[in-house]
Amino acid sequence: MSRYWSSLVHRLTPYVPGEQPQLPNLVKLNTNENPYPPSPRVVAAIADQLANGGELLRLYPDPNAARLKEAIAARFAEFDIAPQQVFVGNGSDEVLAHVFMALLRHRLPVLFPDITYSFYPVYCSLHDVAYATVPLDENFAIRIDDYAAPNGGIIFPNPNAPTGCLLSVASIARLLASHRQSAVVVDEAYVDFGGESAIGLVNQHPNLLVVHTLSKARSLAGLRVGYAVGHRDLIEALERVKNSFNSYPLDRLAIAGAVAAMADQEHFETTRQAVIRSREALRGELLGLGFEVLPSLANFVFARHPQREGVQLAAALRQRGIIVRHFKLPRIDQHLRISIGSDAQCGLLIAALREILA
Amino acid sequence: MSRYWSSLVHRLTPYVPGEQPQLPNLVKLNTNENPYPPSPRVVAAIADQLANGGELLRLYPDPNAARLKEAIAARFAEFDIAPQQVFVGNGSDEVLAHVFMALLRHRLPVLFPDITYSFYPVYCSLHDVAYATVPLDENFAIRIDDYAAPNGGIIFPNPNAPTGCLLSVASIARLLASHRQSAVVVDEAYVDFGGESAIGLVNQHPNLLVVHTLSKARSLAGLRVGYAVGHRDLIEALERVKNSFNSYPLDRLAIAGAVAAMADQEHFETTRQAVIRSREALRGELLGLGFEVLPSLANFVFARHPQREGVQLAAALRQRGIIVRHFKLPRIDQHLRISIGSDAQCGLLIAALREILA
Repeated sequence: MSRYWSSLVHRLTPYVPGEQPQLPNLVKLNTNENPYPPSPRVVAAIADQLANGGELLRLYPDPNAARLKEAIAARFAEFDIAPQQVFVGNGSDEVLAHVFMALLRHRLPVLFPDITYSFYPVYCSLHDVAYATVPLDENFAIRIDDYAAPNGGIIFPNPNAPTGCLLSVASIARLLASHRQSAVVVDEAYVDFGGESAIGLVNQHPNLLVVHTLSKARSLAGLRVGYAVGHRDLIEALERVKNSFNSYPLDRLAIAGAVAAMADQEHFETTRQAVIRSREALRGELLGLGFEVLPSLANFVFARHPQREGVQLAAALRQRGIIVRHFKLPRIDQHLRISIGSDAQCGLLIAALREILA
Repeated sequence: MSRYWSSLVHRLTPYVPGEQPQLPNLVKLNTNENPYPPSPRVVAAIADQLANGGELLRLYPDPNAARLKEAIAARFAEFDIAPQQVFVGNGSDEVLAHVFMALLRHRLPVLFPDITYSFYPVYCSLHDVAYATVPLDENFAIRIDDYAAPNGGIIFPNPNAPTGCLLSVASIARLLASHRQSAVVVDEAYVDFGGESAIGLVNQHPNLLVVHTLSKARSLAGLRVGYAVGHRDLIEALERVKNSFNSYPLDRLAIAGAVAAMADQEHFETTRQAVIRSREALRGELLGLGFEVLPSLANFVFARHPQREGVQLAAALRQRGIIVRHFKLPRIDQHLRISIGSDAQCGLLIAALREILA
């Protein structure tokens, strides 16, 4: 607290990310990282940037990251996406921050689910965006008919976080058909683990923006790259904000690594299929232990045990060196969000839970 | 222009960075990059992060970048700076954006020079910060007595950009002695080329924040790392804004490279001294060609030729494959800002100017 702070700072309650403990031998299942390494092409591309004594590092990166926009557009060639329809940022968190400022700040409130990515209300507080939450139904599903109120925009993750529940592209198309007055932002951080992307809809809907990250299915949480795809006008709004904030949000190594990651479709397929298989196996094991497990299309499961307190389960796992995420929030304070680790990590988790529940 | 834009987007006039043409054999003297490569330790540290098939890249970086804050604090140990007095960001541009939001947005206007880093008014527009400009004197110097008006903060680069003129630390101390009501931000992007840092004053002045970048003297424009040093309360304001915007602004490679760069004092000394020597030599040559050259303590010079139009000189240089920066702005539209290149590049510049002026 200080007299030099702007009034804004006093009222901020920052987002608290899942902890990143620096301990060895931890089974870290709390921040939805991918258990598999990124494409070998990523490592090669970054190493290339270090040639000649790092001579390239002395030069600013391309502020427009044109190569990366082209690589992303090429990845979605089937949907006829042009590079000018792609915005890139320093993680999808930065992309989302700009989205709230550029496209969701209006007189009417932006709508998002009551249970969702907990950064959304934080962005609203930072950028002075009015919002209202819309309750998920009793099965933790998004009911699109509940989003009919006049609004300054709609945003939700799909699959939703931390539930993992997916809304079909047909449902999103139905929402868009009846909703043209404001932007609809679909945050697809987890879509590659069994969901279908709404990117195929952007050329029919000038108010649809789809946000992706390379942190999950591309195993690049450590590199900080995210992007948005939509109509050129929506992208232009984001570019204006970005160019008023930070001209060069992506460094040379991130651009090079991300380009390589987007190009390696085979590694992407292998990795995501492995995570999907592990998720389904883990879900079966958890059900066998008496957990209620929401149907997840993400790289995590959201589960509760009818006889055990969520917070106590999380603490007991932690004592055994296994970290999962527990949210002290209404409706979900009995749930655990468990990231899909390697099969070995999932095995350790199940063994520990068996012991705890015995 | 789109109905989906927030009202803010309509009024933004984004900053235009110096162009980053992707052409070979260009003599690029327009964005104040260092002509020398970064420390070899930087390259080694980044390569280390790529071990085991890039396994580390799948994990989020430390959101607090604690290692880097410690390395920066250690660099300024003589001034007794604690890691909790250091804020780090994705380039000093990101740091500055947060500074405007967290510390300079008040009812009273922030003050900065009429001729200065042209991103400052852009940040004000983005973050709705009132500002007023204070004219430099007739020699393009900052006159601290002109900053006595009631204000919501004061910010200036030191050395100033694009003039290169330095204000002494004694003058800054004098400003601080009479100015306690709002934050004073000294943007020292160029201080390592002959200036003295005001970091030595932060422990006496709870309203002083000093901003640095690794893009210039540390030759890491391509890596995007900047930082601020000040009282813990000022740093806390920046952390709150950062944690409401993007939890992980620095990727693993940037953190590792920046830590290594801060630790290599010898490379830093060698590089900056080489740039200083080249600057003084270039200044002499330009004076010999009839240019008026401001006394610069930065890694660029700011010069005009009394008989030639600035815009035409810039165009003639460009035809010869040499890019310098020309600003179409009042008071300085006859000047060129010329980054200090290698001695070979400076030689090509002088040869071209000789030809143009003949």
